[in-house]
Amino acid sequence: MTFPFDIALVWLDLAGVFFFAVSGSLLAARKQFDFVGSLLLASLVSLGGGVIRDIILNSVPAAFTNPAYLVPPVLATVLVYFLFSSVQRYTSLLVLFDAGGLALFCITGTLKALTLGMNPFAAVLLGRTTAVGGGLLRDITANEVPQLFDARDLYALPAFSGAALTAVLWVTGTFNAATACAVAAVVFAFRVVAWRRSWYIPLAVRGWQRSEARSGEWHTRS
Amino acid sequence: MTFPFDIALVWLDLAGVFFFAVSGSLLAARKQFDFVGSLLLASLVSLGGGVIRDIILNSVPAAFTNPAYLVPPVLATVLVYFLFSSVQRYTSLLVLFDAGGLALFCITGTLKALTLGMNPFAAVLLGRTTAVGGGLLRDITANEVPQLFDARDLYALPAFSGAALTAVLWVTGTFNAATACAVAAVVFAFRVVAWRRSWYIPLAVRGWQRSEARSGEWHTRS
Amino acid sequence: MTFPFDIALVWLDLAGVFFFAVSGSLLAARKQFDFVGSLLLASLVSLGGGVIRDIILNSVPAAFTNPAYLVPPVLATVLVYFLFSSVQRYTSLLVLFDAGGLALFCITGTLKALTLGMNPFAAVLLGRTTAVGGGLLRDITANEVPQLFDARDLYALPAFSGAALTAVLWVTGTFNAATACAVAAVVFAFRVVAWRRSWYIPLAVRGWQRSEARSGEWHTRS
Repeated sequence: MTFPFDIALVWLDLAGVFFFAVSGSLLAARKQFDFVGSLLLASLVSLGGGVIRDIILNSVPAAFTNPAYLVPPVLATVLVYFLFSSVQRYTSLLVLFDAGGLALFCITGTLKALTLGMNPFAAVLLGRTTAVGGGLLRDITANEVPQLFDARDLYALPAFSGAALTAVLWVTGTFNAATACAVAAVVFAFRVVAWRRSWYIPLAVRGWQRSEARSGEWHTRS
Repeated sequence: MTFPFDIALVWLDLAGVFFFAVSGSLLAARKQFDFVGSLLLASLVSLGGGVIRDIILNSVPAAFTNPAYLVPPVLATVLVYFLFSSVQRYTSLLVLFDAGGLALFCITGTLKALTLGMNPFAAVLLGRTTAVGGGLLRDITANEVPQLFDARDLYALPAFSGAALTAVLWVTGTFNAATACAVAAVVFAFRVVAWRRSWYIPLAVRGWQRSEARSGEWHTRS
Repeated sequence: MTFPFDIALVWLDLAGVFFFAVSGSLLAARKQFDFVGSLLLASLVSLGGGVIRDIILNSVPAAFTNPAYLVPPVLATVLVYFLFSSVQRYTSLLVLFDAGGLALFCITGTLKALTLGMNPFAAVLLGRTTAVGGGLLRDITANEVPQLFDARDLYALPAFSGAALTAVLWVTGTFNAATACAVAAVVFAFRVVAWRRSWYIPLAVRGWQRSEARSGEWHTRS
């Protein structure tokens, strides 16, 4: 395979880190955290998923050895500090950046597990864990019920689909820059359209109904 | 020792995984999570304790390498989806399944640490961590004060007793299938009876009184 | 270098563990946890930061191999049980002990990373993570917005400064018992004075104002 996985992996990973970092800084802004709190939440959400992945893969986390991983959180914090001003655009922006991070991380997480020799099944699980892990840490830390479990929103399904597609492409030998971009686009579109159109899946118990209407603002649920 | 520890360990572990997975799906049902959220919470609570244990033991977590570990969460989610219907039985069911998982995990966690060469003291700590870790993750993720810290309920003490008994049996060379079952039964009974009879231990400060009566429903506390 | 890093490191670490353990037991007392819950929260907050550090450094956590690490949480729980009685002194006591733990952990975390061969940049990050990790776990577990993100309080900045100072002293070869004490004193003073004088840094978005006055009691924020 002539596709330079290592370099492409790092760049994709860094882009995903940036997207998640912006989502962290936006949440910090809304929660009235200060500048340092914004930087910390941006770092936690953007680097947390990868750190969990690397710990499970039993390797020293890239975020602690490669200083390049610290640029995106700093950049995101500064951008949100200077450019963000309106609360109106808040939810849409957060969902868009979060979806971007999700789309890239389910690919890079799965790829890293595959290149380190895990079987495709475990790699899909680890890819999904990488993708949803950062957002889970973000919401737990900000003391909210994680977006991941919001029944009014699809979150885990796009990540899982992306990880599964990546593993299938890898096993069939058709993974390359073009197909990777296609997978990222599909996951991003799936996530955003599901949010826009309020796609649901059944609740955890058959026959139970949702007791609340979708509020359109996932931060207001108690 | 002719007792096949590795195989028995995996089966006991899988049974514990199933019990905790049911408790996760039940909490997901009560919290109105959707089907995928139920699967994720079931996975987190049932596999989380073991993943923490394996990460501390510096080995790649079994849950990510042995696909058998994914059957119990799926099974539990499907069972709760089709069979659960009444909120009345909710608390009792959750406590029973949670106690079952606790009883098995404090044994398997301690055993795995002992077989990997840790000293009995550290093994007891790791066994207790394995047993309470999944439930802790479940409650933190669902944004509640963990059951572990509920002063109206004994939770950590049964787990600690079970881990200590397992270590004593191992050190004295009397650990086998029969004594393992006895330990599991003792821990399970201890946990359930303590819950039923409202056994207390003193609060964190001498002379302070409990300000609330036991509500019987540990999910309603703020 | 004739300064015995390993032994000094363990003693400093144990002192930091004790300070954080007291802060955990104090929070447990205030939250009406029972005696075992107090012990568990004290263990989590005092050992959690170091366990995270050791897992990231890919070594088996000292807390699980060296039984000496279990003495401070037990001691702290017993002390709080017998000696603590007044809610009035609660906040000041918690901030003081928390500041003591913070001051020592940012040094020991950075040192351990440096002695294991990480570059100074990564060591500073890991030192800061060690120092704030335990408190973050404490607040997440007790279901609060972490103190770390409280915009009315400086928390991460002293930890970061201490880790950076430690790394500079190490790199310039001037790290010894005297300079270590100086760094600890600076971090402790920085943290406590910032809390007393209500020092602020800007919020995450330029131009946004704090909507609440400082309440002086960081547990009352919603």
